[in-house]
Amino acid sequence: MNIILLDPKQAIDAQRYQLDLRQAEHLNKVIKAEPGDKLRVGIINGLMGEAKYLGENGEGKAEIEVIHLTQQAPKPLPLTLVLALPRPNMLKRTLLNISAMGVKRIILLNSAKVEKSYWQSPVLKADNLQRILLEGLEQARDTYLPELQMMTRFRPYVEDLLPREMVGKLALLAHPYQADDCPINLTQESILAIGPEGGWNEFEVSKWHEAGFKSVHLGERILKVETAVPVLLSRLYPA
Amino acid sequence: MNIILLDPKQAIDAQRYQLDLRQAEHLNKVIKAEPGDKLRVGIINGLMGEAKYLGENGEGKAEIEVIHLTQQAPKPLPLTLVLALPRPNMLKRTLLNISAMGVKRIILLNSAKVEKSYWQSPVLKADNLQRILLEGLEQARDTYLPELQMMTRFRPYVEDLLPREMVGKLALLAHPYQADDCPINLTQESILAIGPEGGWNEFEVSKWHEAGFKSVHLGERILKVETAVPVLLSRLYPA
Repeated sequence: MNIILLDPKQAIDAQRYQLDLRQAEHLNKVIKAEPGDKLRVGIINGLMGEAKYLGENGEGKAEIEVIHLTQQAPKPLPLTLVLALPRPNMLKRTLLNISAMGVKRIILLNSAKVEKSYWQSPVLKADNLQRILLEGLEQARDTYLPELQMMTRFRPYVEDLLPREMVGKLALLAHPYQADDCPINLTQESILAIGPEGGWNEFEVSKWHEAGFKSVHLGERILKVETAVPVLLSRLYPA
Repeated sequence: MNIILLDPKQAIDAQRYQLDLRQAEHLNKVIKAEPGDKLRVGIINGLMGEAKYLGENGEGKAEIEVIHLTQQAPKPLPLTLVLALPRPNMLKRTLLNISAMGVKRIILLNSAKVEKSYWQSPVLKADNLQRILLEGLEQARDTYLPELQMMTRFRPYVEDLLPREMVGKLALLAHPYQADDCPINLTQESILAIGPEGGWNEFEVSKWHEAGFKSVHLGERILKVETAVPVLLSRLYPA
């Protein structure tokens, strides 16, 4: 937790905020903060700045007082990520990374090689997703929560919703066959689709191509999704 | 496991190899291979090719027969990675990624912010390290095992051993303060030093600089080591 992210609901008055349990524990156990210590804070979907730790109030709740909020969050990555739903433990790490790297629009999509049970995972509950995405922001010192959508049907998404999503974006499909080298250092906005373990099937690849996606590959090596994502994002937008 | 890597010790004769337990289980449970099926194989530190699954022999041991071994392993990444020892569960994932990405020389180094207990982790036992590095190769379809050294003392390493290690290499220190942008798309060999959670301390940074390392940063976002490593490698050698 490299920044404490505050929900406006945590405000007590114009300056003071009450920390939630996770934040209070972090201050107690990891940072071992003392009243008066300065802390980096940010408002979710807002500015970042500094606060003073006030310690626990009469009811045993930790409070902080904002000193200033004058800093902009880092620039978002101009990329929409469409990700075939990975297995739950990989999903968690991958979403945290995606959020930390500054992706602000994420679509979790079904694919023939996604096991049905993955859609039942508790990781996909709204509260859990929100917490994972927040943890990514806390890691990276960002405040803007990514939007996340779940699309449990491949074809209606690709045929009906994707065309609008693609407008103005370079559309890339991570798929190693008959593919170009992945471009480096894009200046334009993009949408990137990353398949499941085992890849997209033939039908799916044909649908992506029909929609206007161009296959790109990463080289000879086969990487896990959780590694391929940072590798691809870093290649597309290294700056 | 995208390739079965064979140790010469597993050879029964010129063509036949006996699989180890982990490989046999993978064929049985994940691939559900039948005798006669073709499999991708490689010799550790050697060529890659194809084999035929022979099923279990009279003693219940799975065997394969090599059909050809004519393919070169993918090119190594021309980078030596010096990594402050991460916490054990992060070490495991990070080493697997490093191995999958093609790094062939890894030095695990002590640093002021590395907890002493990390050096006692069972992950650091030779057998476990070897298995993790092999898993990275099996993921990426590579055969060449990285060399890994452990340096439990920072100063003697940086003062005495590093100068020889650096010869002919661009020397980069991942350190966000007073740093240049991380270069993109290097053509030369490099050595990259990545610090612990919380970063190198001031003394350490001064020793790296004395040795001739140049600080580079990745942008405003703070990433976990397991994310920063693929991001950095992908930026230095995107091709």
